[in-house]
Amino acid sequence: MKHDQMMNVAKKRGFLWSSFEIYSGVAGFVDYGPLGAILKNNIMDKWRKYYVVREGFYEIESPTIMPEEALKASGHVDHFNDPMTECKECMDVYRADHIIEEFTGEDVEGLENQKLTEIISQNKIRCPRCNGHFNKVWSYNLMFQTLIGAKGKKIGYMRPETAQGIFIPFKRLLRFFRNKLPFGVVQLGKAYRNEISPRQGVIRLREFTQAEAEIFVNPQDKSHPYFPKIRDEKLNLYPAVNQMDKKEVLTISAQEALGKSLVSSELLLYHLYLAQKFLKELGIPDHALRFRQHLPTEMAHYAIDCWDVEVKTDRYGWIEIIGIADRADYDLKSHSGYSSEDLKVFIEYSEPISVEKTLIKANMSKVGPVFKNDAPKIIKILEEVDAAEVEKSFNEQGFFEIELETKHRILPEHVEFEKVHETIRGEKIFPHVIEPSFGIDRIVYSVLLHCYREEDEKTYFQFSRDIAPVEISVFPLLNQDDLNHIALEIKDHLRKLGFIAEYDSSGTIGRRYARSDEIGVPFAITVDHQTLEDDTVTLRNRDDSKQVRIPIADIEQISADLKKFKIEFENLKSADKGL
Amino acid sequence: MKHDQMMNVAKKRGFLWSSFEIYSGVAGFVDYGPLGAILKNNIMDKWRKYYVVREGFYEIESPTIMPEEALKASGHVDHFNDPMTECKECMDVYRADHIIEEFTGEDVEGLENQKLTEIISQNKIRCPRCNGHFNKVWSYNLMFQTLIGAKGKKIGYMRPETAQGIFIPFKRLLRFFRNKLPFGVVQLGKAYRNEISPRQGVIRLREFTQAEAEIFVNPQDKSHPYFPKIRDEKLNLYPAVNQMDKKEVLTISAQEALGKSLVSSELLLYHLYLAQKFLKELGIPDHALRFRQHLPTEMAHYAIDCWDVEVKTDRYGWIEIIGIADRADYDLKSHSGYSSEDLKVFIEYSEPISVEKTLIKANMSKVGPVFKNDAPKIIKILEEVDAAEVEKSFNEQGFFEIELETKHRILPEHVEFEKVHETIRGEKIFPHVIEPSFGIDRIVYSVLLHCYREEDEKTYFQFSRDIAPVEISVFPLLNQDDLNHIALEIKDHLRKLGFIAEYDSSGTIGRRYARSDEIGVPFAITVDHQTLEDDTVTLRNRDDSKQVRIPIADIEQISADLKKFKIEFENLKSADKGL
Repeated sequence: MKHDQMMNVAKKRGFLWSSFEIYSGVAGFVDYGPLGAILKNNIMDKWRKYYVVREGFYEIESPTIMPEEALKASGHVDHFNDPMTECKECMDVYRADHIIEEFTGEDVEGLENQKLTEIISQNKIRCPRCNGHFNKVWSYNLMFQTLIGAKGKKIGYMRPETAQGIFIPFKRLLRFFRNKLPFGVVQLGKAYRNEISPRQGVIRLREFTQAEAEIFVNPQDKSHPYFPKIRDEKLNLYPAVNQMDKKEVLTISAQEALGKSLVSSELLLYHLYLAQKFLKELGIPDHALRFRQHLPTEMAHYAIDCWDVEVKTDRYGWIEIIGIADRADYDLKSHSGYSSEDLKVFIEYSEPISVEKTLIKANMSKVGPVFKNDAPKIIKILEEVDAAEVEKSFNEQGFFEIELETKHRILPEHVEFEKVHETIRGEKIFPHVIEPSFGIDRIVYSVLLHCYREEDEKTYFQFSRDIAPVEISVFPLLNQDDLNHIALEIKDHLRKLGFIAEYDSSGTIGRRYARSDEIGVPFAITVDHQTLEDDTVTLRNRDDSKQVRIPIADIEQISADLKKFKIEFENLKSADKGL
Repeated sequence: MKHDQMMNVAKKRGFLWSSFEIYSGVAGFVDYGPLGAILKNNIMDKWRKYYVVREGFYEIESPTIMPEEALKASGHVDHFNDPMTECKECMDVYRADHIIEEFTGEDVEGLENQKLTEIISQNKIRCPRCNGHFNKVWSYNLMFQTLIGAKGKKIGYMRPETAQGIFIPFKRLLRFFRNKLPFGVVQLGKAYRNEISPRQGVIRLREFTQAEAEIFVNPQDKSHPYFPKIRDEKLNLYPAVNQMDKKEVLTISAQEALGKSLVSSELLLYHLYLAQKFLKELGIPDHALRFRQHLPTEMAHYAIDCWDVEVKTDRYGWIEIIGIADRADYDLKSHSGYSSEDLKVFIEYSEPISVEKTLIKANMSKVGPVFKNDAPKIIKILEEVDAAEVEKSFNEQGFFEIELETKHRILPEHVEFEKVHETIRGEKIFPHVIEPSFGIDRIVYSVLLHCYREEDEKTYFQFSRDIAPVEISVFPLLNQDDLNHIALEIKDHLRKLGFIAEYDSSGTIGRRYARSDEIGVPFAITVDHQTLEDDTVTLRNRDDSKQVRIPIADIEQISADLKKFKIEFENLKSADKGL
């Protein structure tokens, strides 16, 4: 299986390790080794180039420990649960839906606990370890709990997602964006799920990294200015209806998908496209990518539309690596309710609206003499009271009563009604939120899996040049002082310029090329005897092992251009000086 | 106070916010707003350029949740404590050393709990809130505890430092570096301390970001290849003896400091210098920087030497922002002991050593006939046994006894002693560890504080160009369609090239320059009527408000060169075409 071969290399060469190995390990945690950490950082940097630099969203960073109130508001304290069951004999615990799926083959995710208990009983499912009976299914909260402060009385949780950290300071964010929609805010960081019994390595982690964007928009306007540019781009869509009718995945243009209302808005579609572009540039092939719409049973009740970006794997089948949802105004409304803070935005109408309104004016010549010292107070009250109410009272009772220290009867002759036109510029609303949510660890895994190549006797990661952990290898052809010296100088120079360059002089040159290929270094420079004569070196391409000669003086520019895809290796011409 | 003025701007413009404000806040947590998060990321990226790219260390990423065993080994479960006391009346809790310091003005950090209890009693210190008596002082563990897994039986903690995540996979790291010292491994990430009552904002956080490097070296060789290059660099050293004798800080060259043995090794000194270079490039002035050596009373018992890098602040005095220590072999030895794993490194001697050794050879012609079927076993045992032991036994008893199923007596005639010379290539040792440990949040605070300027009516952050959150502002001189259009195009183009560029057309141009200066944007481009004629724009320098005209076509190159300090603004000449 490709998974196993790839993971072997990934472990051996320092990409991914199980955590706490010397202490027998703890399931659901992973270490990124020296090459894995750079790869992950490079992927996150590329994400920032997409969403922060180009889309113009702003990143924030909020704490990973959150107080209970905030997660009560978000719904996680009450609803972030998995169904659990325990064996009455050996006390082993299992995720109820997983144990049912293993036994019956049926997907029962989302069913009520009582229903799951019934299925276990009806199917006579027993503990796989001791054959004991299971207890009733109950809800197990997936958050890691802790206590904040010395008195140990304030409950806190490790955040279950980075998104909540964006909703909580919404008022400050709105002010930063000068109170105008739309705007986007992102957060990259750790999130936590205390999984019941994780057994899928980097695919189901208890501590993982998310990159989430929350795009706040006017509910009336879910367009995107760049949509016209991407209307002809093709997407592999798997709408809910097709899943239910056992139909195929559709390969369809963005424009057509919008026309057929397969996706709820232009904005959501634009973000499906952007995620696809990102993944393709990371080296995930089109045939291993699809967008699966949530079924009505799995979608949150408040969501307008929700799509999972899925990647095909040989070990785990199709796995979700990104979720892109229109969450409507659920989050802000909920935080606003729990915190009693106004989290609405003033939306200006494109045209101000004019409304007719009736004002009451006191008839001064009458009010003064009649009410004497109370007159000023009465005048003030009349200015604020609803004119319709006063008119109604006149019609029904012939007067309108105002209670000060004593009661006063206002008669029709004491006032005049005046009709005026008032201009209303806009209204306050809760913005809607479009949320692309990326699971970075699963993306790293997908990149490793889909970039892994075995060809003849060559094994390598065909990483895209902009994310390869080591960018360039520098070798002396032979382990000789004069060649080593030049090679080391070139390596040091490249490091000073900001490239991750590695020098290696041990073993045959063939062995060194193989080691360099194996970890996916896109290019290798070799210093040989001709270098001593004409200051040129060879530049070798990882993918086809072809070489060209280039002057040492051009290494900087060529390396930079290759990394930024400004030139292609095939277009490089040998700078042979015909010596 | 500069602190207050700076924090005002930092809050207003989106650098730093208190966390969870809408839920009344939780002390010891901070949000990095849109500009603060970029600033922090830029500082961390610069750190990576220093330590990963140029020093050639490798980054790894390990979990923030750690199992109890690992933190038992590191000493944190037993010793990561603060002394706490509680008021018997109102039950309020305090850090005992802090409450004593507030009352007596004396620094009592590091004293035993019993001693602290005595001081509180002798000085009649009472609860500042209710004047109640305090309980005995006890040790309060500062780690956030949680439970891993559904059965809730495995204790875990949020890591108190990133360093431990590097020691635990040491065997894998050693293999990655092909079993050769020295090598360096770094980690950047969150660490946690459940402070008793944090009241110093971003200076004392319960959740904070560290950047730590662990440099594993041969204990016999703490030199650094680049030391000769930095020997004349000056450092502000505050050695322990000077502190104790109430003497001054010394400004002294690295070479002199080494000569006087003020710092324990070349390697440690090199890292003091590197930290200083890093901080100066971030904009911390020399006079606000010093290296304070740990006093014998505050240094960990196992450490060889330890220096704090301190920055001067008007609000908190001198604060520690980096610690640089020679931790000897404490950590690896301890993890090796607790985990029973071999965490030693084979060190090859520069010259192999020849040692004389005595071997025992069985005299076959005698052993065979005497011991018959047991002979092969006896021959094997004799090969492995210590020759000195056998000789001693011969001398004392006249025989050497070997117990198989029965006891056998080996007599001198059964064996021959042979003296041989054995070549030993090296030995296995625990490496020593040099650890530069950076507190990123305090560095961000120091940068904000020391880059903050108030001049006449201009308020601005004089951020270095390579860390400024917004890199370039683009303005139309007037809010006019033709000018706006060009300005927007320039902004979009800069974004595509990877610059954080911002467009602003609202308010007067003076107001927009002021807003741009306030958040420390180094340069502003203005599109005016001359632009329509000759495709030039003005480029304005934040620090002196000077402007030059440059062609639109040159914006990309000039912006890149300015950011990388390849050119200085003062050297730019106006490209006036004399129209």
